[in-house]
Amino acid sequence: MRMYDIIEKKKMGESLTDDEIHFVIDGYVKGTIPDYQVSPLLMAIYFSGMDDRETAALTKAMMNSGDVVDLSEFGDATVDKHSTGGVGDKTSLVVAPIMASLGCKMAKMSGRGLGHTGGTVDKLESIPGFKTSLSPDEFFDQVRNTGLAIIGSTANLAPADKKLYALRDVTATVDSVPLIASSIMSKKLAAGAHNIVLDVKIGSGAFMKTEEDGRTLARKMVDIGKSFGRNIAAVVTNMDRPLGFAVGNSLEVLEAVSVLKNESRGDLRDICVALASNLLSLCYGWSEEESEARANEAIESGAALEKFKEWITAQGGDASFVDDPSLLGKAEYTFEFKAERDGYISHMNAETIGKTASVLGAGREKKTDDIDHTAGIILKRKTGDYVKKGETIALFYTSKEESEKAAAEMFSSAVDFSDESPIEKPLVYGVIK
Amino acid sequence: MRMYDIIEKKKMGESLTDDEIHFVIDGYVKGTIPDYQVSPLLMAIYFSGMDDRETAALTKAMMNSGDVVDLSEFGDATVDKHSTGGVGDKTSLVVAPIMASLGCKMAKMSGRGLGHTGGTVDKLESIPGFKTSLSPDEFFDQVRNTGLAIIGSTANLAPADKKLYALRDVTATVDSVPLIASSIMSKKLAAGAHNIVLDVKIGSGAFMKTEEDGRTLARKMVDIGKSFGRNIAAVVTNMDRPLGFAVGNSLEVLEAVSVLKNESRGDLRDICVALASNLLSLCYGWSEEESEARANEAIESGAALEKFKEWITAQGGDASFVDDPSLLGKAEYTFEFKAERDGYISHMNAETIGKTASVLGAGREKKTDDIDHTAGIILKRKTGDYVKKGETIALFYTSKEESEKAAAEMFSSAVDFSDESPIEKPLVYGVIK
Repeated sequence: MRMYDIIEKKKMGESLTDDEIHFVIDGYVKGTIPDYQVSPLLMAIYFSGMDDRETAALTKAMMNSGDVVDLSEFGDATVDKHSTGGVGDKTSLVVAPIMASLGCKMAKMSGRGLGHTGGTVDKLESIPGFKTSLSPDEFFDQVRNTGLAIIGSTANLAPADKKLYALRDVTATVDSVPLIASSIMSKKLAAGAHNIVLDVKIGSGAFMKTEEDGRTLARKMVDIGKSFGRNIAAVVTNMDRPLGFAVGNSLEVLEAVSVLKNESRGDLRDICVALASNLLSLCYGWSEEESEARANEAIESGAALEKFKEWITAQGGDASFVDDPSLLGKAEYTFEFKAERDGYISHMNAETIGKTASVLGAGREKKTDDIDHTAGIILKRKTGDYVKKGETIALFYTSKEESEKAAAEMFSSAVDFSDESPIEKPLVYGVIK
Repeated sequence: MRMYDIIEKKKMGESLTDDEIHFVIDGYVKGTIPDYQVSPLLMAIYFSGMDDRETAALTKAMMNSGDVVDLSEFGDATVDKHSTGGVGDKTSLVVAPIMASLGCKMAKMSGRGLGHTGGTVDKLESIPGFKTSLSPDEFFDQVRNTGLAIIGSTANLAPADKKLYALRDVTATVDSVPLIASSIMSKKLAAGAHNIVLDVKIGSGAFMKTEEDGRTLARKMVDIGKSFGRNIAAVVTNMDRPLGFAVGNSLEVLEAVSVLKNESRGDLRDICVALASNLLSLCYGWSEEESEARANEAIESGAALEKFKEWITAQGGDASFVDDPSLLGKAEYTFEFKAERDGYISHMNAETIGKTASVLGAGREKKTDDIDHTAGIILKRKTGDYVKKGETIALFYTSKEESEKAAAEMFSSAVDFSDESPIEKPLVYGVIK
C-alpha cells in the first residue's frame, strides 16, 4: 500500500477502504508517513468528502491510536457531553451535577480554551484547590463515590487526532465535516461513556456558521456514535451571541452556580436543561416531558447544587465560594462599557466578544499562554434589549489596566444597533437523534 | 502575509494575488514555508484551478527563482522546442539541425528520461565522446559557430520548479493544468528563446490522455508564452502508439539519422516537419506552405544531415556513426517478439512499451539508476498493420538475458489485436497559436 495511491484515490473522489484509512493513521502516528503527504490528503478530503463508512473507519482508527477508557464497571448509566465550542459556554458545570444527582455516572475529560472559546478545565481551575489532573485510580474512585469527575484530557486519548488536528490547524483543513466529526467522536468514544449528548453550536461564535452546516455535522456525529453502539443525541443550539451573561473563567463558574441555586432564568438554564433532559432520555428511556421535569426538579430541589459541592470538595476544591463568591477573587480593575447610541442591540458577535475577554486576560492565543482566571466580561444587556446612550452594556474585569482601550474598541465592533427590535432566533434549533 | 490565509483563499476558490504567489514561491525556495503547507495548496489548486493571471504569475515567480538565460546577442532568431514527453520521441535530434541549417539559433537545455519516457540527453550520450555538459562560455560559443547546442539542464534553471515538482511527484498533484503549464513554461522562458514550439502529446503514452485535456494544456501554455512576449505555437500530436519504430537510446539516434538521411517516411518524419515548419513560421513569418517546403528541403538537400554532423562534432562526439551505425555499439542479446494470433494490431499502448524498454535496460526507475544505451525495442509492425501468427512484431535488444521473459509478458499486454482494421487516429490533432 502506498500513500501516493491513497491521495490520488481520494483526489479522484473515490472511497478509501478501511485498511487504507488505518494505514494512513497508523503510519502518520508512527512517523512513516510525513506531514507533507497527509496534508494534501486532508485537502482532498475537504473537496471530495468521505462517506459514512469512511468517516466511521477514520474515527475508529483515531480512537484506537491511544487508550480507550473502560467504564463497563458502571453499567449503562455512564454519560458524557460535548460542546463544539462557544463563548460563555459553562453548561458542563451545570449538567454534570444534575446528571450525577439523578444516579448517572459522568467520568468526563475536558479541554482547555484556545482562541475565542473557553475550556471547562480552565474554568474549574479558578476554584481554589481544585485538581484537574487525577491518577486513573483517583478518577475512577471519585466517579464511584460521587458519580462524577471532570479532568483534563490525558495525553494518550486519541493521540492520532491530536497530531492530525495540529496539522489541520496550520493547513486550512479544519472545516471539513467528516474531519470534524471523526475528530470529536474519536475522543468521545475513547472516553468510554455509553450515553452521549452533543451540543452543536451554530452562529457567529461557533465553528459552524449556518443551521444547515450545524445539522449536517450533528447528523454525521450521531450516525458515527450509533454505529459504535452508543446512545447518542445532538442538540443544535444558537451561538449567535454569548451563552448567559458571563464570559471568563471564575465569572462563568459563578454564573453556573447561580443556575444551580435556581436563581437564574434564561438561555443558559434552558440549554442546560435541554442537554440534561436529552441525556436522561438516552440513559433511562424516560419521555421528553419526564426527563425535562426531572432535570428542572434537580435544580429546584437543590439536589444538583448539593452534588456540585460534593464534587468540588471530592476533587480537592474549596466549595465555600458557593456561598461566598468573593473567595474566587476579583480582578484588579473594573471598566464599564457604555452604549454609544440609543437603540435595540440587533447583534452581538460572540466570537469577537470571546476575543475581547481574551484581550482582558481570560483566554490564551497560544497553548503555552497563562490565563487570568478573574478576567472577563459580564454582559448587562444582550441581543434584543433596548438601551439608552450612556447606559452600561457590559462590565470588563481585568488585571491589565492598559487593556481597556483595545478591549473597548473590540467589544464596540462586536455590537450592532438598530432602531427596530431584531427578529429573535431560536435558542434550540432542534435535536438530532 | 500568512501561508495559512493563502491556502484558505485558494481552497475557497478565490484568485491569489501576484504578491501572494510570489510570497509562496519565494518562501518555499528559502525554506521558510514548509512542504506540509505547500502540498495542501497544490491540492487546493488541483481542485479550484488558477486563472490566466495567476498561472502567469506562478510561471514568472518560478522562472525568476534561478538564472534566466540571456540570448539577446542572437537577435530574434532564437528557437526552442519542448515535448510534454512520449515514447520513441527523438524529434529534437531532427528538428534542431533542420532549424540551424536554416539560420536559426537553438540553444537548448534538455532533460533525462524517467519512468516510461526517454530523455534527449540520454539519447545523445549514446554517441561516443558527446558532452552533454558544457560551460556557459562553451555553450554560447557553439551556438555562435554552429547554430545549435543541446545540453542537460543546469541546476539553477527554475530551481523553484524543481523543488515544487519533486513535491508534486509524491503528493499526487502532478496532473493539474495550471501546475503543468507553469512548470514547463517557467523552464522554457528561463531558457531564453524568442520562438518556442510545444509538442503536446496525447494518448496512452502521454501524461494527457484525452484530446480535450491536451488542447486545454496547449492553450494555457501558448497564452503564458504570449503574455511574456514570446512567439509560440503548440502542436497537439498523437502518442497513442510509440513515435517511429525505435524505443531506446542509440536505437532512436539511428532512427533520427535515417530521417535526416531522407531514408525514412512516416509518423516520425511528419511530426519533425510539422514542428520545424511551425518554428520557421514563428521565426521568419513564412507561410505554412513555405515553412513546410523549406523544412522538407533541408532534409532532402542533405543540409540538415550536414548540420547534424557538424553539431555532434562540435560538441565532442564522433559523428562517423552516421555512416557506420555499428560504431554506436550493439546489445549483447536480440530477441524476437512474435504475434500470438492472426489479426490487425488495433492498439499499441505506448506507455507499456516504454516500460518494456526500461525493463530491457533502456530506462531508469530512479534518478540514480544507470541506463544501457544500446538496449531497447525496434517495432517491425505498428497499429493498423495486419499480422500472421508467428510473424515478428518487435525485436528486443538487451544485455540482460534474463529480462526477456518479463519484457515479453509486458509487451504482450501492450498490444491488442482485432479482426477488423482499426480506425486510424490523426497524427496531428491541431496547432494552437
